[in-house]
Amino acid sequence: MGKLKTEKILLGHGSGGRLTHSLIKGLLLKRLNNPILKELSDSAFINYKDRLAFTTDSFVVSPLEFSGGNIGKLAVCGTINDLVMLGALPEYLSLALIIEEGLDYNILEWIIDSIAITAKRSGVYFVTGDIKVVEKGACDKIFINTSGIGRIIKNRKLSIRNIEPGDKIIVTGNIAQHGLAVLTKRKELDLGLNIKSDCAALNNLIIPILKKTDSIKFMRDPTRGGVATTLNEIAESLRLGIIIEESNIPVSIKVKTACELLGIDPLYIANEGRAILAVRPDGVRKILSLLRKHPQGRNAQVIGTVVRQPRAEVIINTILGTQRIIDMLTSDPLPRIC
Amino acid sequence: MGKLKTEKILLGHGSGGRLTHSLIKGLLLKRLNNPILKELSDSAFINYKDRLAFTTDSFVVSPLEFSGGNIGKLAVCGTINDLVMLGALPEYLSLALIIEEGLDYNILEWIIDSIAITAKRSGVYFVTGDIKVVEKGACDKIFINTSGIGRIIKNRKLSIRNIEPGDKIIVTGNIAQHGLAVLTKRKELDLGLNIKSDCAALNNLIIPILKKTDSIKFMRDPTRGGVATTLNEIAESLRLGIIIEESNIPVSIKVKTACELLGIDPLYIANEGRAILAVRPDGVRKILSLLRKHPQGRNAQVIGTVVRQPRAEVIINTILGTQRIIDMLTSDPLPRIC
Repeated sequence: MGKLKTEKILLGHGSGGRLTHSLIKGLLLKRLNNPILKELSDSAFINYKDRLAFTTDSFVVSPLEFSGGNIGKLAVCGTINDLVMLGALPEYLSLALIIEEGLDYNILEWIIDSIAITAKRSGVYFVTGDIKVVEKGACDKIFINTSGIGRIIKNRKLSIRNIEPGDKIIVTGNIAQHGLAVLTKRKELDLGLNIKSDCAALNNLIIPILKKTDSIKFMRDPTRGGVATTLNEIAESLRLGIIIEESNIPVSIKVKTACELLGIDPLYIANEGRAILAVRPDGVRKILSLLRKHPQGRNAQVIGTVVRQPRAEVIINTILGTQRIIDMLTSDPLPRIC
Repeated sequence: MGKLKTEKILLGHGSGGRLTHSLIKGLLLKRLNNPILKELSDSAFINYKDRLAFTTDSFVVSPLEFSGGNIGKLAVCGTINDLVMLGALPEYLSLALIIEEGLDYNILEWIIDSIAITAKRSGVYFVTGDIKVVEKGACDKIFINTSGIGRIIKNRKLSIRNIEPGDKIIVTGNIAQHGLAVLTKRKELDLGLNIKSDCAALNNLIIPILKKTDSIKFMRDPTRGGVATTLNEIAESLRLGIIIEESNIPVSIKVKTACELLGIDPLYIANEGRAILAVRPDGVRKILSLLRKHPQGRNAQVIGTVVRQPRAEVIINTILGTQRIIDMLTSDPLPRIC
């Protein structure tokens, strides 16, 4: 494969023929190999006796690299996190690449390396995949789809419908870092802050807590649209209110400063390694303590409470002592952050 | 949602916020609804007690519509067929859209309609999905990823490793129609032939036969790279030879004419509704008869035999009485046909 390394991706790499095979064998299988992939078919056989979770996500982030991550790491973490939010242990992932003709082979290699390392650390296997190459100008460098299957680790189903007035809302760490990391890299905004994305797989933080407790009713990772949109989804879906305390929302000084400079609200900025938990009040203390023992949950906070009134609205008690409505994001201040 | 229908897709439709929700509720859920989707989460809960097959495929076909199909129908059939080829009954699919900002809402609606109809006819459910919108110029109209899960219907595993010298190679119908349908539409080649794509889901043809017989050892749908590439994959993987008879390869007169006019070999042209079966010799008669009873299998033919020598090569006995090697496709004469 030495030959290929200095070359660019050609349309023929997506032909299904000899060049596609060289890409699969020389690049992908070398880094992602496992017993299931050895079968080298278009699909994957999997043995299961349990309830499953199944999810899909496409990643189109621009630029491909940002402080704290890149499109490859993101594509693995994003799909892992979707499964974890359902209470599932992520196990099997698929990898579908849409590559722009002319992409440097080295960039593709660097992305696949990152995917392989993230998968290994998170204990997931890639078991099936697909490569398409489109002509120059028909896509922006590379888009990645990862779909995933996970095994539900408890019989009790996590569901938004379990949430009741009185339940507490926990966020597992400092918010708004991913969106800002991508934005500042993209615009080459040198704020002198070096905000690092929170991009991370949540299984190592969340799965052990799910096994030890029963008071988590629902989880969601606040990606696009940020914490504000996730809370609005809960409030609207249940026709309940959520009151949040601005003073309790974990935001780093750097992020606070950047948001003030840029005139944006951290509640609407995407996260890629944080979770929102809706928790039975009597379970809050234990969960908070378990979260904070883990490096990824160090800054976990109770940020709000589910209430009967006002219906279908999210209200913030500001640090100034005022109240205002936090609406769902309407359009996108930061497109292509994931 | 009446408002949206005359509008174009905006970046905000991929924001995860209000506009994304309107797209999900007003367009996708209306057409693809089922009890699992009602949960409206990022992933899908699925109950399983059996062995599964899992597959993924991205679709980047250009143009979006061709004689006999469009990108939506293709995206459903392609993933169904990958599962069927593993001997799995396709059950649950995911749908991930990457849409170019400015795409007409009507085009998106037409594609989703087509997806919904194809899914319904084939008995599969979409249970999870994702929408990304990228800025104008960052992708070509729309790319679709479908991943799928199917239940293995037999204990015996279909595997390329089951194939032995003496086994027969069957193709289930006329070849090369999909690639030519896309090519002639794309180039606006008016050959006066109106070649229709074979794009179709193979579950209704293949699953009943799998249930009735035990002599199918391996199946593969010859998509990109065509029949030639699929046969080479088998030959190379097993270090066995395959001898095929040109006179037995089912090709319509129209396709033969078009291939001669265009100077291309139908063996290298993609199919989207055909399967290559490797069959134990004593089972050929029954399988051929079962295939031919179904409209999709009417033109099924035994096209070749697996042999011990020459190793790892596909040889064709031509209608002129000569022999030549059929190599694997190296580059792509027809990019973006799926």
